[in-house]
Amino acid sequence: MGRTSWVHFCCVFCLILLFLARSWLPLGKPERVGCPGDTPWCTSKNHIYSKSGLGLQTQVHKSTDHSTQIPHHPLDPLTVQEINRVRTILTSYEPFSSTFPTIQSVLLDEPEKPLVLGWKGGDPLPPRKAAVLALLNGQSHVLTVDLGSGHVDSHVVNPTSGYPILSRDDILAASRAPFSNAKFNESISKRGISPSDLACITPSAGWYGPDEEGRRIIKVQCYSAESTPNFYMRPIEGLTVTVDLDKKEVVKISDTGRGIPVPRSNNTDYRYNAQEKPVGMEPLNPISIEQPKGPSFKVEDGHIVKWANWMFHLKADQRAGLVISRAMVRDSETGQLRSVMYKGFSSELFVPYMDLDEAWYFKTYMDAGEFGLGAVAMSLVPLNDCPRNSHYMDGIFVASDGKPFVQPNIICLFERYAGDIGWRHSESLIHGLEIREARPKVTLVARMSSSLGNYDYIFDWEFQTDGLIQIKVGLSGMLMVKGSPLENINQVPNQDDLSGSLVSENVIGVVHDHFITFHLDLDVDGANNSFIKVNLEKEDSLPGESPRKSYLKAKRQVAQTEKDAQIKLKLYDPSEFHIINPSRRSRLGNPAGYKVVPGGNAASLLNHDDPPQLRSSFTNNQIWVTLYNKSEQWAGGLLVCQSKGDDTLAVWSERNRPIENSDIVLWYTLGFHHIPCQEDFPVMPTVSSSFALKPINFFDSNPILRTAPAFETDLPDCKPSSSS
Amino acid sequence: MGRTSWVHFCCVFCLILLFLARSWLPLGKPERVGCPGDTPWCTSKNHIYSKSGLGLQTQVHKSTDHSTQIPHHPLDPLTVQEINRVRTILTSYEPFSSTFPTIQSVLLDEPEKPLVLGWKGGDPLPPRKAAVLALLNGQSHVLTVDLGSGHVDSHVVNPTSGYPILSRDDILAASRAPFSNAKFNESISKRGISPSDLACITPSAGWYGPDEEGRRIIKVQCYSAESTPNFYMRPIEGLTVTVDLDKKEVVKISDTGRGIPVPRSNNTDYRYNAQEKPVGMEPLNPISIEQPKGPSFKVEDGHIVKWANWMFHLKADQRAGLVISRAMVRDSETGQLRSVMYKGFSSELFVPYMDLDEAWYFKTYMDAGEFGLGAVAMSLVPLNDCPRNSHYMDGIFVASDGKPFVQPNIICLFERYAGDIGWRHSESLIHGLEIREARPKVTLVARMSSSLGNYDYIFDWEFQTDGLIQIKVGLSGMLMVKGSPLENINQVPNQDDLSGSLVSENVIGVVHDHFITFHLDLDVDGANNSFIKVNLEKEDSLPGESPRKSYLKAKRQVAQTEKDAQIKLKLYDPSEFHIINPSRRSRLGNPAGYKVVPGGNAASLLNHDDPPQLRSSFTNNQIWVTLYNKSEQWAGGLLVCQSKGDDTLAVWSERNRPIENSDIVLWYTLGFHHIPCQEDFPVMPTVSSSFALKPINFFDSNPILRTAPAFETDLPDCKPSSSS
Repeated sequence: MGRTSWVHFCCVFCLILLFLARSWLPLGKPERVGCPGDTPWCTSKNHIYSKSGLGLQTQVHKSTDHSTQIPHHPLDPLTVQEINRVRTILTSYEPFSSTFPTIQSVLLDEPEKPLVLGWKGGDPLPPRKAAVLALLNGQSHVLTVDLGSGHVDSHVVNPTSGYPILSRDDILAASRAPFSNAKFNESISKRGISPSDLACITPSAGWYGPDEEGRRIIKVQCYSAESTPNFYMRPIEGLTVTVDLDKKEVVKISDTGRGIPVPRSNNTDYRYNAQEKPVGMEPLNPISIEQPKGPSFKVEDGHIVKWANWMFHLKADQRAGLVISRAMVRDSETGQLRSVMYKGFSSELFVPYMDLDEAWYFKTYMDAGEFGLGAVAMSLVPLNDCPRNSHYMDGIFVASDGKPFVQPNIICLFERYAGDIGWRHSESLIHGLEIREARPKVTLVARMSSSLGNYDYIFDWEFQTDGLIQIKVGLSGMLMVKGSPLENINQVPNQDDLSGSLVSENVIGVVHDHFITFHLDLDVDGANNSFIKVNLEKEDSLPGESPRKSYLKAKRQVAQTEKDAQIKLKLYDPSEFHIINPSRRSRLGNPAGYKVVPGGNAASLLNHDDPPQLRSSFTNNQIWVTLYNKSEQWAGGLLVCQSKGDDTLAVWSERNRPIENSDIVLWYTLGFHHIPCQEDFPVMPTVSSSFALKPINFFDSNPILRTAPAFETDLPDCKPSSSS
Repeated sequence: MGRTSWVHFCCVFCLILLFLARSWLPLGKPERVGCPGDTPWCTSKNHIYSKSGLGLQTQVHKSTDHSTQIPHHPLDPLTVQEINRVRTILTSYEPFSSTFPTIQSVLLDEPEKPLVLGWKGGDPLPPRKAAVLALLNGQSHVLTVDLGSGHVDSHVVNPTSGYPILSRDDILAASRAPFSNAKFNESISKRGISPSDLACITPSAGWYGPDEEGRRIIKVQCYSAESTPNFYMRPIEGLTVTVDLDKKEVVKISDTGRGIPVPRSNNTDYRYNAQEKPVGMEPLNPISIEQPKGPSFKVEDGHIVKWANWMFHLKADQRAGLVISRAMVRDSETGQLRSVMYKGFSSELFVPYMDLDEAWYFKTYMDAGEFGLGAVAMSLVPLNDCPRNSHYMDGIFVASDGKPFVQPNIICLFERYAGDIGWRHSESLIHGLEIREARPKVTLVARMSSSLGNYDYIFDWEFQTDGLIQIKVGLSGMLMVKGSPLENINQVPNQDDLSGSLVSENVIGVVHDHFITFHLDLDVDGANNSFIKVNLEKEDSLPGESPRKSYLKAKRQVAQTEKDAQIKLKLYDPSEFHIINPSRRSRLGNPAGYKVVPGGNAASLLNHDDPPQLRSSFTNNQIWVTLYNKSEQWAGGLLVCQSKGDDTLAVWSERNRPIENSDIVLWYTLGFHHIPCQEDFPVMPTVSSSFALKPINFFDSNPILRTAPAFETDLPDCKPSSSS
């Protein structure tokens, strides 16, 4: 479909473009919203809808019927029925009897660790509980609801600074609010933009001092969606509306960018069916990961994944996104399943933009606690987001009225063969006496992609048969861009004066960072573990000792307390970082362990007392180890919106609790600096980085020594599709 | 085959186990070496040969007939006929008329850059020349031979310190030498080891001062190959023989490890057909990358690879291993092929072990210049080293008598689909109005694996359609281990006193580093480029300027001279590193560029005046940029054996030549620290790290915007193999 064929009209059954705070609103069941005849924010893009059959074949897998589902495992997420029961219990809960609060979050309140560890298949489940975040009269309510007894077990109001995660209603109300404001409408009109072309997003306000305290606020900024679905590339620069989320009214309007043109729509549409020009490269023949006998993994009871030597619990969480629990690997000698990780997930993000302008300074996102990584995950596209033979999993989430909804196909699980080598050795080819041993590397990947508005984060947890877990984050989607009068870089005397890069005419891609902090509750062969820093120190040889003058020596230091485990990575002062079980020794007496293996990384350089860094002080180090505490799950705090940093990982670690031979949690932060470039326009090729958890004296020897090579006779017979 | 079925005998047509200096000898045509009846170094492993049909199906692809091959491109490696002609020319070369030298290396002497750049398909080739390293009477001869004129163009004797790369005869002679030494035989006998069970390797001597100068020497150490092909795990610790390579005699024997037992052979055999115990995990169903219409790349004239938007020249080099030349990518807008990289290859390795013992201090390998990365590359194993539909390429190499031989199937080239995502975006699902755009990532990989004795290095050059080149090094194979009386780590009071980790009974995996330095002659849109450091500096906001206190600012610094481009990576002082063409501007005026994107890395911490570090001073920085100089190809110098570090990248860079807007070469060093663990025994699961070259304002916009998604109808119909 050509760009010229766009049709603009506002219809009776018009749909609200819910351009959320850099994020999309998770509507489980697509809603019809009656469009008030003259509502300016109501714009229709149903020409996309009508053409969808021509576009990408999404072929979303059918969802399970969740209405009758029951939990099978203590860590299974709340079911549809359980969520409904939480709502019923809260409805009759006395403090809410006059006014039902808005529900910001309902998650499983996981049972205490010993209950989970003691539970076996067939046992009755430990009491099922829900962790609820609600808002009532501007107060944050934190409740635990016991589904069995029907009682509220605990109820705390405003335990820390900050407000709960935003609800869909918050975002919807915020994005509507500016349209009833005369000054806003006047500015739009003066800029010559039709209100029907507006698409508004709701960047978080951050927290910038007392002026913005005592009420829930958010920023709203708008874009022109005229002639493109990629409105992100068409900012209405400098027009920032501050909205009171509870009063649903405009608090402040900042309008600074009047002279800045809205960038044009040319070449911004990224959809396949909107492309007119040829691709500019030789076409590729079809290529596919094929498994004619099907995948080798099983998913039991909806969440228990069994594959090769691994078993783990996999679920979608509205806030954390993809959660791996109870990861266990089979010992290659004894055949026993051994614990590796109790729980692993993306705990918080921090995404500061490097521009002090009135319309930019507050863009310092903490996406997990503000918007939810699961909440913004949309159905994955088979064959494109995930290969053939993938297994898809839904999320059961909760709307602001406390009702459940289904987010279908937001996790995929697949086996990967990428042509890589698990291990190999070639030995002396002598008179045909050759050794050529190699094993193909096959892995298992669990994936979720969270569309945080413009950005798409791809979270991969990859399990290897050698015991390694690789955690990879990919970044794609669109830049957050700034409108500019610039059309060519030669119009500025010094390019360094810009806060970013000119990526298209009138479009600046602003420099920013991404930090993703992972909660990694490793329990190596049990809960009581120690954190060991194995420092590689350069030593000088003694006079006469050796022809060598220097060498490296590995020096092991056991972290006694949390402060010992606040680690900044250093290329020239390198260490390995081991989580070991001092009580579980290998045949040779080495403690069983896992190490965290950093890959490419970036650190936050902002001042520690800068408000965004204070709130995201969990990025002050790349590695932390804390004493396990069930309530310390969220690195940026339980209540993140407008938080002041009083409930972060950095605060907990400063308590400096003893951590030796204790139940401890490893935290790792993966970072990216992003200086945009033209290749990032209008949609970014995926950039990714990763780290790994690698067994270290956990197995008595190479656990994949005895795996079989691939033989020609094992592989499938394939022919081009008969329908192609 | 069980371990008990080993048979030991020495036969008439016995084969020499050529356990080379940590490396295997590249015998193109397997040789029969008559075994003197009582030769102790002669041991037979032809039980392996006789059982090979039961083992891994190598199914090596048939090689091309190279005898009639002619060169088609100025950069094509020397052909069989050309190598023979070099030998003929040298035979009649006057200085060699009385004695023909031993030939250590014959490589193509690549034409001057302008000749290559000016050449077009169909043109006659520029004059074909050979670069020869030879040895005569202890002198190093460096010659250029003109194949057209039949003349020696240049001839220099001992241009720098050091000796040429080792030849197969050097290594064969060295590994034989100890057996005629009474003291050696006595030591072996006293240790109760049968000479017929010995397997000897030849670690390089390094350079440790005047005592070892003036003659070519090498170390020889032996292992017990009794009951296992994995002799590397059975060191005869402390017995080190220094051999004069030219006199072929023992210079010195050091025998310090008498009390140390030879580790047992149990569980050391890694071959598939030697495994008796079950694998200990659920079997995996067959999985394969399938392309029923075949791969999308073409290989023209043996070396020109065309795929998607890429074109490059690919060849195997006896020293550098895999070489990529003339890499060009098609502009997504104009369709023009644009230059990215003139030449890229692994220039040198540095692998220092961290043990000062008499038997260990010298283990500071520089494998490319000492042994040759191509020389030790063996045939790749289809379906295990490389997936189906791979294209295999041979190496045409030169023996020490100057005769050519073929190393078959040492490069594979394949398309990879790993389930990854090229780019994606999901947008507001409203009333079915959904955008779900994702593109599968398909890449092209060129791979070689170099078996440097115990270690197997896997070199991958991966080309992406978005213009990115990822260079990955994988490490597998065996540890270099040290014999020890220790059977359990509790037998030492302080584990840190060891130079490594106890990985099996009596086996210490010694701590070591790996550094791989890449020569990356980027020519972005032409030869004249500049190196830009884009430093991200933390700035404080001015009082009253912003609610924010700090932000990052990108500051561009053009490197004027080579010293400006000596870069140590710093997490807390981060930069991007761009190679740009100041004369080639994008539509927006940005210079076309590529950046080097570091991933996980490690730095050498040894003292700069320590002999091994002095010789490998190219690892003093992670990044260097030098002025292009055809003779500066080898980061550790042309003559590496026993070199003193007078001809290294660090020396060239210290000249501090101007590099702005000039033909420049980027050097990047990828490093690994390796503290071994039990999982590395008896063969190591692959560990890998990588870096990338990424286009930065090279394309006017995302070059893969218009690529097609995968549709179900494109994918193959597969069924299990009928023969399975």
